[in-house]
Amino acid sequence: MSMFVNRRDLEFYLFDLFDTQALLEHERYSDYDRETVEAILDSAEQIANDKFYPCADKLDANEPLFVDGAVKVIPELNDALEAYAEAGFVAAGFPADAGGMQLPSVVCNAVSSLFTCANQAASNYMFLTAGAASMLRACADDALVEKYLGPMLEGRWFGTMCLSETQAGSSLADIRTQAVPRGDGSYALSGSKMWISGGEQPVSENIIHMVLAKLPDAPPGVRGISLFLVPKVRVNDDGSLGESNNIALAGLNHKMGQRGTTNCLLNFGENGETVGYLVGQEHQGLANMFHMMNDARIGVGLGAVMSGLAGYLYSLDYAKERRQGRKADAKDPTKPQVPIIEHADVKRMLLTQKAFVEGGQALIYYCSYLLDQQSIATSEAEAGKYHLLLELLTPVAKSWPSEYCLEANKLAIQVLGGYGYTRDYPVERFYRDNRLNHIHEGTHAIHGLDILGRKVRMANGAALQLLAAEMAPTLAAASEDAHLQGHADALQAAWQQILATIEAVLSSDDSERSLANATLFLNSFGHIVVGWLWLKQALTVADRDDAFSEGKRAACRFFFAYELPKACTDLDLVASLDDTCLSLTAEQLAG
Amino acid sequence: MSMFVNRRDLEFYLFDLFDTQALLEHERYSDYDRETVEAILDSAEQIANDKFYPCADKLDANEPLFVDGAVKVIPELNDALEAYAEAGFVAAGFPADAGGMQLPSVVCNAVSSLFTCANQAASNYMFLTAGAASMLRACADDALVEKYLGPMLEGRWFGTMCLSETQAGSSLADIRTQAVPRGDGSYALSGSKMWISGGEQPVSENIIHMVLAKLPDAPPGVRGISLFLVPKVRVNDDGSLGESNNIALAGLNHKMGQRGTTNCLLNFGENGETVGYLVGQEHQGLANMFHMMNDARIGVGLGAVMSGLAGYLYSLDYAKERRQGRKADAKDPTKPQVPIIEHADVKRMLLTQKAFVEGGQALIYYCSYLLDQQSIATSEAEAGKYHLLLELLTPVAKSWPSEYCLEANKLAIQVLGGYGYTRDYPVERFYRDNRLNHIHEGTHAIHGLDILGRKVRMANGAALQLLAAEMAPTLAAASEDAHLQGHADALQAAWQQILATIEAVLSSDDSERSLANATLFLNSFGHIVVGWLWLKQALTVADRDDAFSEGKRAACRFFFAYELPKACTDLDLVASLDDTCLSLTAEQLAG
Repeated sequence: MSMFVNRRDLEFYLFDLFDTQALLEHERYSDYDRETVEAILDSAEQIANDKFYPCADKLDANEPLFVDGAVKVIPELNDALEAYAEAGFVAAGFPADAGGMQLPSVVCNAVSSLFTCANQAASNYMFLTAGAASMLRACADDALVEKYLGPMLEGRWFGTMCLSETQAGSSLADIRTQAVPRGDGSYALSGSKMWISGGEQPVSENIIHMVLAKLPDAPPGVRGISLFLVPKVRVNDDGSLGESNNIALAGLNHKMGQRGTTNCLLNFGENGETVGYLVGQEHQGLANMFHMMNDARIGVGLGAVMSGLAGYLYSLDYAKERRQGRKADAKDPTKPQVPIIEHADVKRMLLTQKAFVEGGQALIYYCSYLLDQQSIATSEAEAGKYHLLLELLTPVAKSWPSEYCLEANKLAIQVLGGYGYTRDYPVERFYRDNRLNHIHEGTHAIHGLDILGRKVRMANGAALQLLAAEMAPTLAAASEDAHLQGHADALQAAWQQILATIEAVLSSDDSERSLANATLFLNSFGHIVVGWLWLKQALTVADRDDAFSEGKRAACRFFFAYELPKACTDLDLVASLDDTCLSLTAEQLAG
Repeated sequence: MSMFVNRRDLEFYLFDLFDTQALLEHERYSDYDRETVEAILDSAEQIANDKFYPCADKLDANEPLFVDGAVKVIPELNDALEAYAEAGFVAAGFPADAGGMQLPSVVCNAVSSLFTCANQAASNYMFLTAGAASMLRACADDALVEKYLGPMLEGRWFGTMCLSETQAGSSLADIRTQAVPRGDGSYALSGSKMWISGGEQPVSENIIHMVLAKLPDAPPGVRGISLFLVPKVRVNDDGSLGESNNIALAGLNHKMGQRGTTNCLLNFGENGETVGYLVGQEHQGLANMFHMMNDARIGVGLGAVMSGLAGYLYSLDYAKERRQGRKADAKDPTKPQVPIIEHADVKRMLLTQKAFVEGGQALIYYCSYLLDQQSIATSEAEAGKYHLLLELLTPVAKSWPSEYCLEANKLAIQVLGGYGYTRDYPVERFYRDNRLNHIHEGTHAIHGLDILGRKVRMANGAALQLLAAEMAPTLAAASEDAHLQGHADALQAAWQQILATIEAVLSSDDSERSLANATLFLNSFGHIVVGWLWLKQALTVADRDDAFSEGKRAACRFFFAYELPKACTDLDLVASLDDTCLSLTAEQLAG
C-alpha cells in the first residue's frame, strides 16, 4: 500500500523482535491490543501517504520565505499538519489524564517513523511540539500546564526549543539571553536565539517557545541557566489570545536540506517587552531540558534512519525496473539489457543500505522499548536499570544512524546513477536532509565524548554490564545455531575488545589524550550494538524460510562480514591512545 | 594571496615530490623554466581569484535556466570563461604547432586545479572544450582539424562529449543515435543524447559536439559505434558561421550540485537535418573516445580533489577563528572560549581532510607526471611502461578522490556545525558538487570491475610489477629512517596482501563471484597507492623541521594509523570471495 514504508518490516520490530504484545498487556496500555495498534498505524500511514508524502518534494523546492517580516509556506504544509493534529498524534505518547492517547513509546515511534519517512521537514514541526509539551508537563507548575498544554496537544499551538545563540551552539554555558523578574512572577526576556527550528511559521495559532536564559543573579556557566516558557502571542487568563509578545523574526537560515522546516534567528524584547514564565526551578534549566533530551535524541536517530529507509526503498524499486548492461557471461548486445538489481555491486549497495537502515530501525525501536520498560517498571531498581541502559545507548541511537544511514543515502544516489544526482528524483533530497543529523542535538563529537568520557564509566561500568546481560541470551542462543555460531563468536570477541579498549582508556592519566579518538569509539560501539541486533533479527527468523527471512539472514551475514571487522580495526586504534591528531598544531595544518 | 589554494603546497608536488624541473629541461618544454611556470600559475591564480571564485556561489544559487528554447546564465559566467580563453588556457597542453602553449601535463593540471578549486561548475566548460579538441586533433583527418581546432583552442567555440542516451548510460553498447551517409562524405544524425554537460549555453559562438552514433550497417554493440563531429551551427568553408544545424535542446537536468554547468537532453535531426562528420574510422568510435579517456578520468579525480581541498581550506580557516567551548581541564565559564581548532576531534576532522586531499593531489600530479614521461619517452618500450602504469592507475585516480575527498567535504561541513549546513557558507556546495564524481566518466563500480577484472591482469600482471618498482625506492629509503620504518613495513605487508588477494581472485573459476567485491578492492588498492605517496611525501621533508613539514609528517602518520588498516580489513574480505551480496535475490531484498 505505502510507497515509503514496509509495514511488514515495521511490525516485525514491534511484535517479533521486541515483545510489544506483552507491553500491551500491561494495565497502562490496557486500552490497546495488536489490532488497535495496527489500526492506529493504518490511520497514520493514510495521512502520511495522502498529506505528507505528496508535498515533500514541493516543500523542498519551495522553502519557506521571509516576506515583509512574516513567513510564507506552501499551503500543502498547513493541510498536512492540520490532518496530523486532528488525528490526535501530537498527544500520542501522553497519558490519558492529560488528554493523550497513552500509547507506548515504541508505538509512538512507529507512528513517527511513518510521517518522517514520508516528509521529514513537515514532521519536524509536530515532533518539536510534542517535545516542548512533554517538557512543559514534566517540569512546569500546574498553572502553566493548565494554560498551555491543552492547545499544544491539540496541535493548535506549536512548540519549539530555543537553546542556541550565535556565540553559543555546542557551548550552552555561554548563552547571553537575559530574563529579568517583572515583579509579578513573570520575566522580561531579552536576547537572540539562533537555529530555532519552527521558530516562526504561519500554520499554528500560537507558538510556545521553551527558552534557555539567565537571571540577573545567575552564576556563570551551565549552573546559571533557567528555562522559560515564552509564547509568541500572549495568552489571556481565559486561554484566548492577547497581544503580540514582541518576538521578532530577524531572519531565516537557508539550509542544504530539511528546507521545509523554518530555521530562525529570533530576537526577544527588542521592540517592546517579551514576557516569559519560569519552568521548574531557577538555574535548573539545563537539567529540565535534559528531561526530554533522551526522547529528542532518539528522535534524531529515528529521523536519520527514516531518511535512509526512504532512499533504500526508492533505490530498490528503481533497481528492479531500470535496465542497464548485461551479465558478464552474457554480453550479447542484441539481447535485452538486465534490470540493474542483477549486477553484483548494485546488490552490494542495496544490501549495505538494508543492513544500515534495518539495523538502525532495530536500534531505535529497542531504545523506545527500553523507555517503555522504564515507564512500567514496578520498582525503583528496575526503572534505574532501564534508565542506565538508556543513558548508555542514547548517544548511539542519536549518532550511529546519522553516520551510517547517511552513507545509505549516498549509495541510494549511486544506484540511480546520473538520475539520482538530479532533483527529479528524491534520493538527493534524502541525502541533503540527513546531513543535518550529525550536527543537531549534540554534534557527533560531543556524543563520542559523552559515551567514552562518561557513559561507559558511570556507576562503575554498571550500564555496560546491563547491556552485556541484554546481549547474553542472544549470544547463547546463536552459539547453538550452526549458521549463527560464527557470528556469536565474532560478537563476543568484539565485546571483549570494547571492554579492553575502555580499560586502556581508563588506565591513562591523560584525559585529553585518552578521549582524543572518542568519535571512533562511538562509531565502533554502535556497530557492536547493531551487530547484536542483527544477530537477534537472524535468530528471530531462524526457523522461517520465506524471502523476508532470507533477506534478514543475508543482511546479518553482510553486517558480520563487511562491517563488524571495521569496528574492531578502529578499536585497536582507540586502545592505542594514538595522539597523532591531538598533538597537531594549527600552524602544521595550515602548512 | 589566494583564498582557495595553497601555492606552497602546489609547488611542493611539482618541484619537490615530483621532478618537474627535470621535465622542463627536456627539449619539448625548453621554452619553460621554474620561473616561467610560476608566472603562468600566478596568471591562472589571478584569473581564478578575480573571475571564477567570486561568482561560484551565485552561479550555484542561480543555475542556468531554459527560457523560450534557449539557455540563460548569469553574466559573470561569460566574463570568467572569456578571461580564461583570452589567457590561452584552453590550449595549455597542446603543442606549439597546433597553436598551444606546449606545457607538461603536470603543469596543465596544476593550472586546472586553481580554476577547479575556485569554481568547478564554470571550469567544466573549458575542460570539456580542451578534451573535445584533444580528441579531434588525435583522431580526425586534417581537413576537420584545420577547420575546427583553432576556434576551439582560442575558446571561441566550446566542445562537448555526447555519449549517453536515456537507455544507455553505463551501457554504451545500447546507444541508438543513427548517422546516415548523405553521399557527400557527411552524415545525417538523428537521435537523443542525455546528460550532455555544456550541451547548450549562450557563452560561446559555436558548440562542437563529439557524438557517438551508429551507421546503418553497424554491427551490434560497442563494435558498431562511430564518432562524429557535430557543430551546433554549421561552419562555412571559410570558417565563418552558417545556418543552424538543427540540434534542439529538449531540456536541462537540474542537479544537486555543479549546477552552473548546464546538463542537457539534446535532440538531433528532429526539426530539420543535423549534419555530422566522421572522426577517425567507421566503427572505431569507442576506441577513439578512449584516446582521451585517461585524461578525462584524471580530470574527474582532480575535480574531486579540488572540491575536497576547497572544503578543507575553508573549514581550516573557520576552525582557527570560531570560538566555542573550552578545554576539558579548563572549563571556567568566565574565561573566553577557545578556537575550535584546539579541540581534539576538530583536529581529527581537519587532519583527515588533509590526508585525503593532499594524498589525492599527490595521486593526480603523479598520474600527470606519468603522462609527461610517456610523452617524452625515447623508446616504445619506455612509453609502453608508462602507458601500462597509467592504465592501472587511471581507475584509481578517477575513483579514490571521488570517495575520500567527498568524505573530506562531509567533515568540512561538520567543522562548521550548523553554519556549515546553511547555504551562507560554501562547504555544503562543495559536498553537493563532489557527489557527482562517483557517477560520471564511469561509475565507481565500473572502475572496480576495470581494475580487478582487467588492469591487474593485463600483460601478465606487468603493470603491478611496474608499480611495485616505482614504490621500491620509497620503501628502501623509508626502511632506513627510524621514524618511517614502521610505515614502510606496513606498506610492504599491505602490498603483499594486494598480491595475495589478486591471486585468490584469479584462482577462482567463478568470474562473477570473484569480482563481486571489486569496488572494495578498488578503494583498498587506492589506499595503498596513496599510502605510498604519503610515505614519499614524508621522506621528501624528512630533513626539514618547519611547520609545513611537520604537517606532512603528521598526515603521513595519520594515514598509516587511521586509514591503511581499513584497506587491509577490506582486502581480507575480497580475498575470501564472499558471496553474501551476489547470492541475494530481488525478493529477499524487498522482504
